[in-house]
Amino acid sequence: MMIDSPKKVAEILKEQNNILILVHAHPDGDTLGCGFSLCRSLISMGKKARVSCSDPIPSKYGYLFNDIEETAFEPEFIVAVDVADTKLLGKENEEFYGNRVDLCIDHHGSNRLYAKRTYLDANAAAACEILLQVIKELGVEITKETADCIYTGLSTDTGCFRYSNVTPRTMIMGAEMIEKGASHSDINTVMFDTKTKSYLELQRLCLEGLEMHFNGKCSLITVTQDMFKKSGSDESECDAIASLSRQVEGVVIGATLRERADGSFKVSLRTHAPVDASAICGKMNGGGHPRAAGCQLTGTLEEAKATLLKNIEEYLK
Amino acid sequence: MMIDSPKKVAEILKEQNNILILVHAHPDGDTLGCGFSLCRSLISMGKKARVSCSDPIPSKYGYLFNDIEETAFEPEFIVAVDVADTKLLGKENEEFYGNRVDLCIDHHGSNRLYAKRTYLDANAAAACEILLQVIKELGVEITKETADCIYTGLSTDTGCFRYSNVTPRTMIMGAEMIEKGASHSDINTVMFDTKTKSYLELQRLCLEGLEMHFNGKCSLITVTQDMFKKSGSDESECDAIASLSRQVEGVVIGATLRERADGSFKVSLRTHAPVDASAICGKMNGGGHPRAAGCQLTGTLEEAKATLLKNIEEYLK
Repeated sequence: MMIDSPKKVAEILKEQNNILILVHAHPDGDTLGCGFSLCRSLISMGKKARVSCSDPIPSKYGYLFNDIEETAFEPEFIVAVDVADTKLLGKENEEFYGNRVDLCIDHHGSNRLYAKRTYLDANAAAACEILLQVIKELGVEITKETADCIYTGLSTDTGCFRYSNVTPRTMIMGAEMIEKGASHSDINTVMFDTKTKSYLELQRLCLEGLEMHFNGKCSLITVTQDMFKKSGSDESECDAIASLSRQVEGVVIGATLRERADGSFKVSLRTHAPVDASAICGKMNGGGHPRAAGCQLTGTLEEAKATLLKNIEEYLK
Repeated sequence: MMIDSPKKVAEILKEQNNILILVHAHPDGDTLGCGFSLCRSLISMGKKARVSCSDPIPSKYGYLFNDIEETAFEPEFIVAVDVADTKLLGKENEEFYGNRVDLCIDHHGSNRLYAKRTYLDANAAAACEILLQVIKELGVEITKETADCIYTGLSTDTGCFRYSNVTPRTMIMGAEMIEKGASHSDINTVMFDTKTKSYLELQRLCLEGLEMHFNGKCSLITVTQDMFKKSGSDESECDAIASLSRQVEGVVIGATLRERADGSFKVSLRTHAPVDASAICGKMNGGGHPRAAGCQLTGTLEEAKATLLKNIEEYLK
């Protein structure tokens, strides 16, 4: 069942206690910002609440929850935040809770409507935009800690207010959270301005092998298992490499070909408008969004590269 | 004489015609955003106005002014925007106009008060924050083109709303400009997500020689004339290299040592709080801001490096 306003979401939450909040696996700033801002708000109302994630939460997000005191309870009401599909809960939480989520709060148009009740706003740049409205309807104080959570979601899901998903509302909510005391510049330093030594080394190796194709319209970066070993980096740092491929001046298609441990290849395409990344990946049995898509390829590196470049060339024609 | 409100700035401007607007040399998004938003507003009031810069304006800023039709006139009133000192006007405009600026609109606390009248707001993250207030007081329509100008200043002077200078007002003005039609995501792509091939090659060479000192607290990047030659890059792209030095995880002092054509060295320090970059550079006859400072060193590369590291080590003690 679809819920049609943040006010109704708040009304439902007000009636509940012993609330378990699920965030998605490989957690990011938006799902965690949602989870912990909601958790804090519910606790401040005298309720019991906690956040659960199938994966460990990276230490850089510690400020979102380090001061929350957890109390034990048997979950009576289960809320998923920023989770479009039960698969994304990760193995453990999907198994335990996948078929009994009472409420889902999300901003993905692709949401599978797996929860008993769903509040969806696909125009929200971050799920935290929705959470802030819900928290306001709950009538609780927005503390500095809650403001840090919401700001983190707004900022991380928009590349620090940089992407096309940003609306006036996103900016105004950012202003409100700064007003409430969010440590905006410290948060942004951690999220955007800190690079591990191993990532920088991986980036150096990637730039060494950067190829340009089709009159500079397409850049191709290859990441091999050997490069992971040499740099001490791993696949978790590859998102930034994929973004890098599109940043080269004149490039409209940035392609990254990443060798997997099993020898297959993961393709990540990042494009500038109007190039449709998902159309190109669709030709190779993959898919995604217009500006970011992916697919799998097998064979040798040379074969995978040839297949990828052929499909890009055909699209550019 | 100091002016105490944007309203009074507007009142002064309303009385003038044939207005020459001066921006600073090595123009950036904020000075140009100010210049062209003011120029557009004055023209829309039926006045004659144009912007002058001692340096060529980089082509990526073309959208700020390409559609403005210039008409010839003899300047009767001279306004400087985002210019803290007449020296910063650049040789040509300093010579012609340095001693006859009628009005200065600026956000640098260090403004030398060289103009007949000055409106200064050092709390503004960007001079465009002030310009927007002035334009509102002029009572003219804020067109999509004006919004592009103002948004560009707000975004570029704050690292896309990332730095500690951002206030709720900055965010709210960003929201307003998006509302008025600013092409925010296209602007951000050009300003933040586009890197030249030569810059990426320079970055690769810099990362190859990246040194870590003092238990990882200090990173040191060396840029030689030979690296400029090999990469096809030049000194204009070194600001981003200096920023990179501070982004390494764990680093509190990022140092860049850049070889000049005359064989001397330019030191750029970028620090995280509480490390005082200007105190360290002060010991080497340089100076700057708490988080970004510089100085000059002579001698061989090894000598310059030793002097720099000795001063950093002493500070860290």
